[in-house]
Amino acid sequence: MGPHPAVAAIRLAVRRVLHDVLTDLTDHTGSPAGPRRAAGSLPLVLVACSGGADSMALASALAFEAPKLGIRAGGITVDHGLQPGSDLRAAEVVTRMTALRLDPVESVAVRVGRDGGPEAAARDARYGALDEAADRLGAAAVLLGHTRDDQAETVLLGLARGSGIRSLSGMPEVSGGPGTARRTNRYRRPFLQVDRQTARKACMVQSLPVWDDPHNIDPAYTRSRLRHEGLPALEKALGKGVVEALARTAQLSRDDADALDAWAAEAETGVRDADGRLECAKLYALPPAVRRRVLRRAVVAAGSPAGSLFARHIEEVDRLITGWRGQGAINLPGRVEAQRQGGRLVIRQG
Amino acid sequence: MGPHPAVAAIRLAVRRVLHDVLTDLTDHTGSPAGPRRAAGSLPLVLVACSGGADSMALASALAFEAPKLGIRAGGITVDHGLQPGSDLRAAEVVTRMTALRLDPVESVAVRVGRDGGPEAAARDARYGALDEAADRLGAAAVLLGHTRDDQAETVLLGLARGSGIRSLSGMPEVSGGPGTARRTNRYRRPFLQVDRQTARKACMVQSLPVWDDPHNIDPAYTRSRLRHEGLPALEKALGKGVVEALARTAQLSRDDADALDAWAAEAETGVRDADGRLECAKLYALPPAVRRRVLRRAVVAAGSPAGSLFARHIEEVDRLITGWRGQGAINLPGRVEAQRQGGRLVIRQG
Repeated sequence: MGPHPAVAAIRLAVRRVLHDVLTDLTDHTGSPAGPRRAAGSLPLVLVACSGGADSMALASALAFEAPKLGIRAGGITVDHGLQPGSDLRAAEVVTRMTALRLDPVESVAVRVGRDGGPEAAARDARYGALDEAADRLGAAAVLLGHTRDDQAETVLLGLARGSGIRSLSGMPEVSGGPGTARRTNRYRRPFLQVDRQTARKACMVQSLPVWDDPHNIDPAYTRSRLRHEGLPALEKALGKGVVEALARTAQLSRDDADALDAWAAEAETGVRDADGRLECAKLYALPPAVRRRVLRRAVVAAGSPAGSLFARHIEEVDRLITGWRGQGAINLPGRVEAQRQGGRLVIRQG
Repeated sequence: MGPHPAVAAIRLAVRRVLHDVLTDLTDHTGSPAGPRRAAGSLPLVLVACSGGADSMALASALAFEAPKLGIRAGGITVDHGLQPGSDLRAAEVVTRMTALRLDPVESVAVRVGRDGGPEAAARDARYGALDEAADRLGAAAVLLGHTRDDQAETVLLGLARGSGIRSLSGMPEVSGGPGTARRTNRYRRPFLQVDRQTARKACMVQSLPVWDDPHNIDPAYTRSRLRHEGLPALEKALGKGVVEALARTAQLSRDDADALDAWAAEAETGVRDADGRLECAKLYALPPAVRRRVLRRAVVAAGSPAGSLFARHIEEVDRLITGWRGQGAINLPGRVEAQRQGGRLVIRQG
């Protein structure tokens, strides 16, 4: 008799990702960007585990699949220090990961700052700690337990920004994580196609103890409100397929945004004159979606912080091209100015 | 003292669209596709009016603005015959439009079929009647009262399909309407940037009587559930800016989808061999977003009905390119088969 379907599902998801990790290791052997490891030793894959159902399910599947592929499986839990007793809880997660025969297993304490709000600050601290641990232990990859439901929530959060399809593209299956320019494929999310219910079920049938993250039910957090009120109401109105539809939208939007970014990068070189200034007539001839991306690239290159630059800023610059009636200079974030002069667009920091 | 801000807002929105209509008429004078009208007579613009707040506000703004621009303003109400007494109600809407000094004013009775569900069937019947009336009266344009809130709902309905950014692009500001291949700019939606609350307010301060469409509060209709439950819950979770963000997403997605469609159309010619067959190696070199659009075009061209062709079908065909392991022929809607043979993709109806 095979394992319970939920357990089979999480194991299959992890197995696929471990195959990808091994493929990448083979492709990049000897590359200076590759993970530090002694010749002949087994590659190490870590799981980031909060003790919640999603990451405990992930830890259990990693512990089961890794040895069969000649991979060492380890685990990291991050103590955010946000609740009294969080250190004891982290110690308990270490015990639980050890019981799954993960090795090495570590608890890492971080100090959460305040930049960008509580969720962003906690995330920054967490990835900083995971990066440090992965570097120190020479890990080939760090697995994250985000599920299809998390992905659906992320798409809705992006939708609320109204800033276009890049913000609808959710979390990638493979990424370098914030602040990791050096390694572009460190973080892997095997459960983006697995729903939360399956992860919970897999823990239950394997008798794994799990915690509910107190943040997950605190309505002060936008994501929590979305999870417990917004998304259920949307499902009630639109049907049970909403989560899957949102996750699929993420993937399609990501591919579309990548293609358009590539087009804009190529188009940008073609619309500059000999002095590198943008020619309005050539910009006008581009499709609006490409033109706005070219303008965005140029404004960011001139020193405007990407995070402060909204769709309405770019629309205003675009009107210098499509609705020219002698407008003056346009002020943009980061003291950048855009101005039309003699059929050319001049974008520079003041 | 000027008009109430809500009235000013709806009039400005209509004025802009009427300017566009006049510009188009000047551009297309003498074109056989243009509206039939005697030389020297004033152009006619119709409003489609249900008697609800959105379209009554639109009718009032059209009646106010049209004469100042040398445009005749008329109105059509469609009697869907779905409730007892709908004919009396339509007659009352005619009276109300006449009171606004619209001329001509007509009520058109239609028979709603069953194809595609109650909402789609009612929409098909309505546009059929509007097309017929616009043709018969030689109208330059038909204005529709869809607001920013309607647009937000349409984006969420598209999101629930999970079929990519085209389905997120909502309703266009200008369109030919279903079944109108002949006139691509007949229908105009001046209120896509105006919220429902503003339209209601404008009716109130102008003492215009309005009806609430009984369909709007019938929870059997998906859109109604979304309006009264889904969207409010989403606003509660994500903040009041959600409707605006969704409407902006529609516009950005439409432009992005147009650009990618144009790219795919161009790419398609480049990936065919001398015999017109798709070359797998050249397809492989395209960005995934462009490749999947090329494949979709080819499958539709082979006879697969666009409406039955889902993202998962195209993904399966795509795996003949990106995950080739000797798969057999893939069955697609409309008895179309896709098969890889000797480095070429053969897509044909069986």
